[in-house]
Amino acid sequence: MTTHTDTSLPIGVFDSGVGGLTVLKAIREELPNENLVYLGDTARLPYGTKSTASIESYAKQATKKLREYNIKILVVACNTASAAAIDTLQQYLAPIPVIGVVEPGVEAAITASMGDSYLVLATEATVRLGAYSRAIKKRDLNAKVREQSCEMLVALAEEGWTSGHIADSIVRRYLLEAEDKTFKADSIILGCTHFPLLRDTISNIVGDVVVVDSAVTTAAVVRETLTSHKIMSMGKQSGTLKLLATDGTQRFARIGGNFLGQSLTAQNVQLVDL
Amino acid sequence: MTTHTDTSLPIGVFDSGVGGLTVLKAIREELPNENLVYLGDTARLPYGTKSTASIESYAKQATKKLREYNIKILVVACNTASAAAIDTLQQYLAPIPVIGVVEPGVEAAITASMGDSYLVLATEATVRLGAYSRAIKKRDLNAKVREQSCEMLVALAEEGWTSGHIADSIVRRYLLEAEDKTFKADSIILGCTHFPLLRDTISNIVGDVVVVDSAVTTAAVVRETLTSHKIMSMGKQSGTLKLLATDGTQRFARIGGNFLGQSLTAQNVQLVDL
Repeated sequence: MTTHTDTSLPIGVFDSGVGGLTVLKAIREELPNENLVYLGDTARLPYGTKSTASIESYAKQATKKLREYNIKILVVACNTASAAAIDTLQQYLAPIPVIGVVEPGVEAAITASMGDSYLVLATEATVRLGAYSRAIKKRDLNAKVREQSCEMLVALAEEGWTSGHIADSIVRRYLLEAEDKTFKADSIILGCTHFPLLRDTISNIVGDVVVVDSAVTTAAVVRETLTSHKIMSMGKQSGTLKLLATDGTQRFARIGGNFLGQSLTAQNVQLVDL
Repeated sequence: MTTHTDTSLPIGVFDSGVGGLTVLKAIREELPNENLVYLGDTARLPYGTKSTASIESYAKQATKKLREYNIKILVVACNTASAAAIDTLQQYLAPIPVIGVVEPGVEAAITASMGDSYLVLATEATVRLGAYSRAIKKRDLNAKVREQSCEMLVALAEEGWTSGHIADSIVRRYLLEAEDKTFKADSIILGCTHFPLLRDTISNIVGDVVVVDSAVTTAAVVRETLTSHKIMSMGKQSGTLKLLATDGTQRFARIGGNFLGQSLTAQNVQLVDL
């Protein structure tokens, strides 16, 4: 990245659907003057149950589309795509920096945890890829890590059933599957961008166990990267926000509003083809 | 269709994923000598949350792939694709006959129901398309129809959590959303091929209310159509079964076995590109 990059160029954020809006929200709070363009690949969601080859190919197509918007940095706001394709995307976009959510999530957990047993709640594909285990053990060789796939939590978040006895029972069942006599989590990493919507439910069940997600730490890494690359926006006004989806703008608006924390209509979302 | 069609040609069956295997199973029981080729578009599942335009386009691509196998008849074993694209596919494949699952499901409900209030449990897209309501009212102008979208039931069936208190609570919640003082179902139509796996749970809750799915009646319609077109297999041996998927053959085998009622391995499933 040369120092000639126009600092008003947007930050690109991509996810398989609406979940990454939890990360977008944190970036907007951390960096309110930045222009943002978000792409949700809703035509092919969820990534979490797809093969690694498909996820890589989809992530590359989404990145190609965001490049048309002259992004100055890319945030892969999807744990599954981060786990499957971060190296591929970094090579593809170089010298434009690419940030995933796995490393910032692990950083947050290591900082906050009171012990060395980490439970990662994630999608099937993220668990299969084992990126969280590798990232944690790179920092702490003695760490004990369990990764638990929790597809029903994705459905709960999309349906908006984020509290109450159904959400409670489902979370308890996954925790029961993950923990046993030999493993009791000191911290829980929300390894899917849908899961912050279930944070209160999870925290109520696990009590003192630290529950972390990657949204806030990812936003902090974006700030550091913009600073080190000298591409932080000089604007004093609120940044713009452009929302793109590959399918179903009405559904994107209806469900995405819960993730972004503001109401959206289909007119706020532009349909694009990859 | 001319009378020159080779009767040993396969029946093509297509679904967005593994759910249509419940229909395939019924066809195999009804017509054990027929050769079968099944395509699950697992790279783009689920269809139930996608736009109508996307569903139509995906269904057409899947049909094109099955045509390469010289199918003599196509069964669209997916309620969402049947609701969105049956006319398009009939035009596209003519004179090869195309059978959907909506009409056979409605036929089964009308035959079995003790009253004229029908509750359809289905995906978001199927509900939005209203194909069940139209098909029921075409036969019974006075019928009262409610269509309830139940995305969490898809997740339950895929996760294999088809009984127990979590499945029970989720079914009860959807029934509570669908029924009120002005509407009490006389029969329930399982308007998604995933839902037969939850039939016992649903039946236990609703007691005497008739619960129908389209698998068996669709198989009967396939038999009638083969007979009327004079293309029923003359073979005396058990028919062959070829399974195709557009992504994740391991996951297809693992989850699909529950739907087909026999265990599968990834070697039983061939990966294809659309």
